Amino acid sequence: MERRAFLNTGLALGAAGIAGTAPSRLNASTRRFGAPDGPVRLSSNENALGLCPAARQAVIDGIAEANRYPGATRRAVAQALATKHGVSTDCIVLGNGSTELLQMMVQATASRRTKLIYAEPTFEDVMEYSLPETYLRHPVPLDRRMAHDIGRMRELAERSWDPTLVYICNPNNPTGTLTPCGEIDEWIGSAPENIRFLIDEAYFEYAHDPGYSSSIRWIMDRPNVVVVRTFSKIYGMAGMRLGYGVAHPDTAKHVAQFSAGTNTNELALRAGLASLNDTGLVARSLDSNARGVAILRECLEELGLEFLPGHTNFLMHRINGDLQTYIGRMREHNIQVGRPFPPMLTYSRVSIGLPEEMERFAETLRTFRQNGWV
Amino acid sequence: MERRAFLNTGLALGAAGIAGTAPSRLNASTRRFGAPDGPVRLSSNENALGLCPAARQAVIDGIAEANRYPGATRRAVAQALATKHGVSTDCIVLGNGSTELLQMMVQATASRRTKLIYAEPTFEDVMEYSLPETYLRHPVPLDRRMAHDIGRMRELAERSWDPTLVYICNPNNPTGTLTPCGEIDEWIGSAPENIRFLIDEAYFEYAHDPGYSSSIRWIMDRPNVVVVRTFSKIYGMAGMRLGYGVAHPDTAKHVAQFSAGTNTNELALRAGLASLNDTGLVARSLDSNARGVAILRECLEELGLEFLPGHTNFLMHRINGDLQTYIGRMREHNIQVGRPFPPMLTYSRVSIGLPEEMERFAETLRTFRQNGWV
Repeated sequence: MERRAFLNTGLALGAAGIAGTAPSRLNASTRRFGAPDGPVRLSSNENALGLCPAARQAVIDGIAEANRYPGATRRAVAQALATKHGVSTDCIVLGNGSTELLQMMVQATASRRTKLIYAEPTFEDVMEYSLPETYLRHPVPLDRRMAHDIGRMRELAERSWDPTLVYICNPNNPTGTLTPCGEIDEWIGSAPENIRFLIDEAYFEYAHDPGYSSSIRWIMDRPNVVVVRTFSKIYGMAGMRLGYGVAHPDTAKHVAQFSAGTNTNELALRAGLASLNDTGLVARSLDSNARGVAILRECLEELGLEFLPGHTNFLMHRINGDLQTYIGRMREHNIQVGRPFPPMLTYSRVSIGLPEEMERFAETLRTFRQNGWV
Repeated sequence: MERRAFLNTGLALGAAGIAGTAPSRLNASTRRFGAPDGPVRLSSNENALGLCPAARQAVIDGIAEANRYPGATRRAVAQALATKHGVSTDCIVLGNGSTELLQMMVQATASRRTKLIYAEPTFEDVMEYSLPETYLRHPVPLDRRMAHDIGRMRELAERSWDPTLVYICNPNNPTGTLTPCGEIDEWIGSAPENIRFLIDEAYFEYAHDPGYSSSIRWIMDRPNVVVVRTFSKIYGMAGMRLGYGVAHPDTAKHVAQFSAGTNTNELALRAGLASLNDTGLVARSLDSNARGVAILRECLEELGLEFLPGHTNFLMHRINGDLQTYIGRMREHNIQVGRPFPPMLTYSRVSIGLPEEMERFAETLRTFRQNGWV
């Protein structure tokens, strides 16, 4: 039932990519904070709104304490996150961005026989972290829905009793597509303990599909599940480097052994706490994102450039012609778009900026079409 | 010759600890920035002056960019550090505090046969980072000068051809004492490549002994040497989490594989750059520290409590009675002093705060004496 609803929203598509559904929240205003001079950055899935006003003030108020190792503030953030997720504080592992959590899990699971199973394409950090280790790497192409091919991943994982780390980025970066949680849940519910699940929910707040939900529900029953979240996206704090993992207390304790000591910045913690307490922040980010998406989709549809049904703050769309040439030309027009994500080299990933930035991107793309470039 | 000068400054002492030489810079003014309400923190070797004014302004100016992943600022800081140390940019590895560099080196050297050789007592982080790894740990007590026992460490290291990591914290935390660089240099100059040297110079700027110098001089000739520095101490940025390693480009590249991706905070980088450019900062920190040390030494001498010849922003002194009881009583008097450092359980480590904070500590210690507690 859940999965059916999920598939109806636009994921039952060929890998070629077809337009998804239209976002619905277009009426809230956005404010332009700290837009940099220089190129329009639509390359790194940042949140162009920047830190929320309360977080900005928290940073300023914290400067006088920035000579002290964080202690009380760490505890306050862990407590706030525990409350938010309805878990105990010892389920929370703070990280220098969610990327440090990915690294911790890679390191905590590494052995000469450990398998690492991940989608292709997906966020590359886990593979980077596994490179100095002795992992056996098994990339598994996204399926025709652009979802994780859970069946194929499962087959690879269950082929032996060797320790296995399964990385699932959901929604997936760079495609923005969802993997039905029913499929993930079914696997987690029946998987043996040698299989560890690293569920990356960096873009959780952007996804509103009925077939999508957090895997945090599993952590108390399944110590082999770690869910990772970040303040970089919906909270607009990418430069502050704050993320966290949610896991069973035993798992959290084990994984935290691989953290870099006092791994969080005092000002990031204060900004994070202020952001968590800002009840309007998520809605504002979603509103701005939806407005940007609408502008982008209108342009892509007009130009007949297919795009994947994104559930994030970025969109992956077809281009005609060579990707590197396209990226270079965009840069010449003072716009940074995403890096290439092999093997999807006929697609460009573009992050959602402020509405006016997306207007500029759309104009530029129309010019490219006039020049016969896309 | 170098070593003789060195020993004359007060290191040729028994382990019982005798007063060192008096600091000379007592005339500059210090400013009280952001001293927190609550306890006087003399527990974590922080710099009570806080971020320098230029760094504070840099943080404020950077808030509008804190939603962006650091890129240009990382390169600017690496370049500034390369210039400072007269090395190329590819010799610099940025870290989430210098502690992340310690972790990277521990991880980069780990194997089932790797020996870890370190002083006892010394800064504990390297041992913490080695715990989830498969290291063979070899603590070596400080010698009667309270210096690293290089002879004994060398004997242990050269007993086999197994990979070996030697951690030398110089000046040493928690004792504040120096290890003659002539002895370290002699070893580095003749050591086989299976021995890697991790030289922690977190307190470098506080040491002015003629027998002391940086091991950075070795990095181009010896790819098995990594020197670690921090912005936490002299620059007063402990809560910002910024440190770095200096090493041969090949070593730097290898070690950086173990960093947590984009591991530095944008505001920390900006504050770091501003601090490096503040030419008066080091002198101001040293002046304040010297004033605090003078107040502390006068009190300890008056009470006949021996102390080690510290070359840092902390001092280790004898107490009479049980250490945990002493720490608890200080806390009851709203003063936090350092944690216990086994096996030196008749000593307390006290960080140097602002002069007025050291006056308060001294008063409290005199009261303790009146009560017969020390």
